[in-house]
Amino acid sequence: MSLLVVGSVGLDTVYTPFDKMEDALGGSATYISLASSYFTGPIHFVGVVGEDFPNVYIKLLENHNIDLEGLQVIKGGKTFRWAAKYHYDLNVRDTLLTELNVFQSFNPVIPKKFQKAQFVCLGNIDPTLQLRVLAQLENPRFVVCDTMNYWIEGKKKELLELIKKVNVLIINDSEARLLAQEPNLIKSAKMIRELGPEILIIKKGEHGALLFVEDQIFSAPAYPLEMIFDPTGAGDSFAGGFTGYLHRTQDLGPDNMKCAVIYGSAMASFCVEKFSIKGLEDLEYLRVQDRFREFRKLSRFDEKE
Amino acid sequence: MSLLVVGSVGLDTVYTPFDKMEDALGGSATYISLASSYFTGPIHFVGVVGEDFPNVYIKLLENHNIDLEGLQVIKGGKTFRWAAKYHYDLNVRDTLLTELNVFQSFNPVIPKKFQKAQFVCLGNIDPTLQLRVLAQLENPRFVVCDTMNYWIEGKKKELLELIKKVNVLIINDSEARLLAQEPNLIKSAKMIRELGPEILIIKKGEHGALLFVEDQIFSAPAYPLEMIFDPTGAGDSFAGGFTGYLHRTQDLGPDNMKCAVIYGSAMASFCVEKFSIKGLEDLEYLRVQDRFREFRKLSRFDEKE
Repeated sequence: MSLLVVGSVGLDTVYTPFDKMEDALGGSATYISLASSYFTGPIHFVGVVGEDFPNVYIKLLENHNIDLEGLQVIKGGKTFRWAAKYHYDLNVRDTLLTELNVFQSFNPVIPKKFQKAQFVCLGNIDPTLQLRVLAQLENPRFVVCDTMNYWIEGKKKELLELIKKVNVLIINDSEARLLAQEPNLIKSAKMIRELGPEILIIKKGEHGALLFVEDQIFSAPAYPLEMIFDPTGAGDSFAGGFTGYLHRTQDLGPDNMKCAVIYGSAMASFCVEKFSIKGLEDLEYLRVQDRFREFRKLSRFDEKE
Repeated sequence: MSLLVVGSVGLDTVYTPFDKMEDALGGSATYISLASSYFTGPIHFVGVVGEDFPNVYIKLLENHNIDLEGLQVIKGGKTFRWAAKYHYDLNVRDTLLTELNVFQSFNPVIPKKFQKAQFVCLGNIDPTLQLRVLAQLENPRFVVCDTMNYWIEGKKKELLELIKKVNVLIINDSEARLLAQEPNLIKSAKMIRELGPEILIIKKGEHGALLFVEDQIFSAPAYPLEMIFDPTGAGDSFAGGFTGYLHRTQDLGPDNMKCAVIYGSAMASFCVEKFSIKGLEDLEYLRVQDRFREFRKLSRFDEKE
């Protein structure tokens, strides 16, 4: 059974102090699929683009064993476009443009053969659409869901309905505080898990991530990078690596979930090391495993007997 | 050979949303000494207070095997006072009062028997005074130094002179960025180590700490606390636990240094769990070791073979 990925597909124009790129392949479903493609395949992909979507990007996705049967191409439509400029301090970003285009009326239709999906990763899109995806699935075993402050603020009711139905919610630290209305992150996590998701992951950017599973907390370090080229897609790459690894291993126990968080963090680190999706284009699984081991070195300590 | 601690001693008035306390025992030397006293002793203590300094605090320090021969009591003088109010979000603090009093003209004098100190922890005070301490020591083997943004901004020249002479610099993440004038923390660390200290620790509050030693980076998690009663003294407790553990074990290799960072983090977590110094008053070493093991559980991951 394949991993189902649903989310946005877009053409990104990104400026950083180091480089710029126009109409690059972007979107949450894109980054999730590419990251997860190093762990499992084929990836069942659902999204929407316009007729202007370059064929070279279709090829790129297909070359990563991503099954595009669920990609709607709207005749005469224009693909979702997003433009942003990162400051020298890459934590600061100005959004220059958000053109929804065909994404405005996106209604995710899950092809028959995708409906039996056991593992699902819902990329960051309107929670109403994420709910519509779940309604079309037969009996998913494991649903991972990403969201953002925009939906916490604007579609809280729908989001609360959604997170009751997912197994894992992935958000960042400021979103966790916003959702729980509580400054203490550990208390926020407890409150959010009471709203539904049995497993919660709080991403903290350069500070790593926290996993809350059963009665355990796991603190994952961030990979120490002296140079971040482009933070775009880091969170999606995390979600893709996390879900992809779990799909590969089919083990949902807490110990394996911790490893999945490290693989997610590894994919995020590959993503931000290069511009746009370049860091996820030509990886080898051996390099991913090497990075996993580097994460272990980074956080391992033992007292002498 | 004992551990030498030099820093401030004060009477703190602290308001948090949960409690308040007037004229509590405070100051960097106080927190460092108390935290390190669980690892080694006697602690050789150097500081200054006024005649108003309560005798009960003298007793409290002495009961922790802290040798106060280096504590100057200025006749007719008033002890350093500091008052602050923490907000509901404990990361936000308003300083209500800073009365230097006898601290204004503090000239640290290291008693003869303290001058052979091999391990030294310089608490956060004016770098000019920290330099004066070092000038009185015979041949210290291992000097740990804390500082803050106030000195980075106001006494940069003296601070740069100082950090050439220390083995370990401990600062927080915003101070590291300020000192290096660089937003990327990993690059900042590299730049700061080029200024002198062979070992650098960057504290990140609720996000843990980073240790840079030899060619290794170690990422320590923060202890997950649902309730922080009073953040005052957390950084000093970290420095005390770190230096105390190294003094106890006399092993300055990178692997033991990682354990020392965890013991420092453990002492900081005990500190903030209770108001003022209460969390450091009646600990047992067994509880400290238990917490060390909890840190291991928090960060340990392993892939199945």
